Amino acid sequence: MVGCRMPKLVEYVDGPPEVRAVFDDIKRERGVPDVNNFWKALAIHPPTLARTWASLKEVMAPGGAIDPLTKEMLYLAASAASGCVYCIASHTAAARAKGMSDDMHGELLAVVAMAAETNRLADTLRVPVDPAFDAG
Amino acid sequence: MVGCRMPKLVEYVDGPPEVRAVFDDIKRERGVPDVNNFWKALAIHPPTLARTWASLKEVMAPGGAIDPLTKEMLYLAASAASGCVYCIASHTAAARAKGMSDDMHGELLAVVAMAAETNRLADTLRVPVDPAFDAG
Amino acid sequence: MVGCRMPKLVEYVDGPPEVRAVFDDIKRERGVPDVNNFWKALAIHPPTLARTWASLKEVMAPGGAIDPLTKEMLYLAASAASGCVYCIASHTAAARAKGMSDDMHGELLAVVAMAAETNRLADTLRVPVDPAFDAG
Amino acid sequence: MVGCRMPKLVEYVDGPPEVRAVFDDIKRERGVPDVNNFWKALAIHPPTLARTWASLKEVMAPGGAIDPLTKEMLYLAASAASGCVYCIASHTAAARAKGMSDDMHGELLAVVAMAAETNRLADTLRVPVDPAFDAG
Amino acid sequence: MVGCRMPKLVEYVDGPPEVRAVFDDIKRERGVPDVNNFWKALAIHPPTLARTWASLKEVMAPGGAIDPLTKEMLYLAASAASGCVYCIASHTAAARAKGMSDDMHGELLAVVAMAAETNRLADTLRVPVDPAFDAG
Amino acid sequence: MVGCRMPKLVEYVDGPPEVRAVFDDIKRERGVPDVNNFWKALAIHPPTLARTWASLKEVMAPGGAIDPLTKEMLYLAASAASGCVYCIASHTAAARAKGMSDDMHGELLAVVAMAAETNRLADTLRVPVDPAFDAG
Repeated sequence: MVGCRMPKLVEYVDGPPEVRAVFDDIKRERGVPDVNNFWKALAIHPPTLARTWASLKEVMAPGGAIDPLTKEMLYLAASAASGCVYCIASHTAAARAKGMSDDMHGELLAVVAMAAETNRLADTLRVPVDPAFDAG
Repeated sequence: MVGCRMPKLVEYVDGPPEVRAVFDDIKRERGVPDVNNFWKALAIHPPTLARTWASLKEVMAPGGAIDPLTKEMLYLAASAASGCVYCIASHTAAARAKGMSDDMHGELLAVVAMAAETNRLADTLRVPVDPAFDAG
Repeated sequence: MVGCRMPKLVEYVDGPPEVRAVFDDIKRERGVPDVNNFWKALAIHPPTLARTWASLKEVMAPGGAIDPLTKEMLYLAASAASGCVYCIASHTAAARAKGMSDDMHGELLAVVAMAAETNRLADTLRVPVDPAFDAG
Repeated sequence: MVGCRMPKLVEYVDGPPEVRAVFDDIKRERGVPDVNNFWKALAIHPPTLARTWASLKEVMAPGGAIDPLTKEMLYLAASAASGCVYCIASHTAAARAKGMSDDMHGELLAVVAMAAETNRLADTLRVPVDPAFDAG
Repeated sequence: MVGCRMPKLVEYVDGPPEVRAVFDDIKRERGVPDVNNFWKALAIHPPTLARTWASLKEVMAPGGAIDPLTKEMLYLAASAASGCVYCIASHTAAARAKGMSDDMHGELLAVVAMAAETNRLADTLRVPVDPAFDAG
Repeated sequence: MVGCRMPKLVEYVDGPPEVRAVFDDIKRERGVPDVNNFWKALAIHPPTLARTWASLKEVMAPGGAIDPLTKEMLYLAASAASGCVYCIASHTAAARAKGMSDDMHGELLAVVAMAAETNRLADTLRVPVDPAFDAG
């Protein structure tokens, strides 16, 4: 039967092999018994599921120049700035799990909100970029 | 003749006393000989200049739960997510000055861009928030 | 008693003549027994209801240079990019009804999400427009 | 002296081997003598360059359920909806090269703009999603 | 207990003294028996609660060059343009309380939606700013 | 040779009759010797030019429940909130011409920026809408 029924969530037992392979990798990487709804929703298009997970794993991999907690907080700040409800919820939880305290959470909120305010002011006033910002 | 002439930049010598007082405080706090264009543009409305600087000084003050470099990178991530050209330029320069390396800059970009991608996917699929994200 | 009570939905039987006329035209054009909530909500301001329907009918009219399914998918892509939940739901259903398959839906999602990622990268890096893009 | 100097564009001759490898693949895939500024700017962080190109190549690959011209127009619609100047310019040029006519361009613009208008109306009125949109 | 549990709302009786002081000031200024959820949610970070209320009180203070109803409608227009559901609801109620009629509400919606449409057209076509707009 | 050359501006003398008719109407309505770049850019697609002008004329028509200066300031606030450079420039000039003073401009900026800040806070904290906002 044709329809849209959004969001359809694909559970592990109902997924084709290529979906199960990605779910297995997510569970192994994160040490969790099941994947989040985001991955179950993405599983309606297995190539996008596989590509997105591969990208995310690479971008968020430990061992880079930025530590994992800071990366998670940057992810949260970017999601908060664009207003994605699900992403804010999931990355708040992830940042909490990696050590973000109540005070850090509050300060992050303040920075994101302050950025939104000055972003609007700078855009609206068409402030020219200071030459010093581009100097080497 | 009345007009709009945007962006009008108010230089120190041309500013009224309440503008000069803010400019003096910015220069003292930051140890710089002159303020950036953002503040000169904001000076067309002295109350907004004073309030914005007071807020920013408080939000970005050292001694909080998040260190100054991380705060600056969160500011940059939020500005990049909302696409404010001036803010990206100024906070990239500020983060550089506080120690952001080329690799950290690259990883920050990757996180912000990845967040934009998964934000669109989560929004478009209307993924329901996992109960675990809200559990205490 | 004064209040806001949003969203108020205006049903056909409760609408003034100018609202009924628009609802009748929508039902006739689309061959449906009732109009969607969007139109019932817009009916709180009859001039905006009439103008919006007239514009939409003209923009989405068949017989143009772009076929109806592609137009509907472009509408969905633009709505997904700006994160409008209602619009994503209604235009996903409309695109489904005009023939968008599961695979096409998945690929559309991937394109929109990829665009969000590269949009952030291009904006954040302030990439200069290549002269070739503007060459005739 | 440390600085930010944005946007720094990495030319082929100045790039490390991993950058040259990606540039070579882009040039081969697209049959062009040089890569666009977007890739030269991304090259400041080789892992992001490699990952972004790999994702884009996969997402835009021919042979899927949506034809290449429609995919390019969806990319343009999503970029226009989020206001990325560089992306609008590059994907307008790409869509032109794949066959988008003046009329198709005009109709695409009309759809994107109309979507922006109805997106704001639906969001502002908090229109509830019609049950029929989710029925299977 | 560790967790994220969002949104946590801080009630007056549970708040520390610095939260109660802000809540008292809001109630006194607005002549209401309790503060809105926005302030209860912000109270998880008392410095941000205090700073935001101080800024808002100053920005929306009567006696400026723009009358209170118009200011409230500008706030609503800006919130509608960025799609913040809570802000749209709260500022619609506030504008109603200050005298916004059904017709004014309808016209405000029409202006915001029209702005969204022409914003997309101007951005997408990269329309150059007319010299006259900047003439003094 | 085919190309994109954006933005192409259509001058009166080069336009087809349906473009000239719209330009004539704009000039007559506004009492100006020439139309702004926005209309010249839109003229690449005459149906979109005609429809957009008809909509704008209707939405901004005097004699409604909101006076012309306030409407223009609402347009500016919405454009500032979405960051459209051209629209900010053109509607700042229009509001100036209709009587917006320097102080009104400054206060409008402060409201838009404050809205951006509280929008991010409300969205990020997922503040639940107060029942009172929806009470009648």
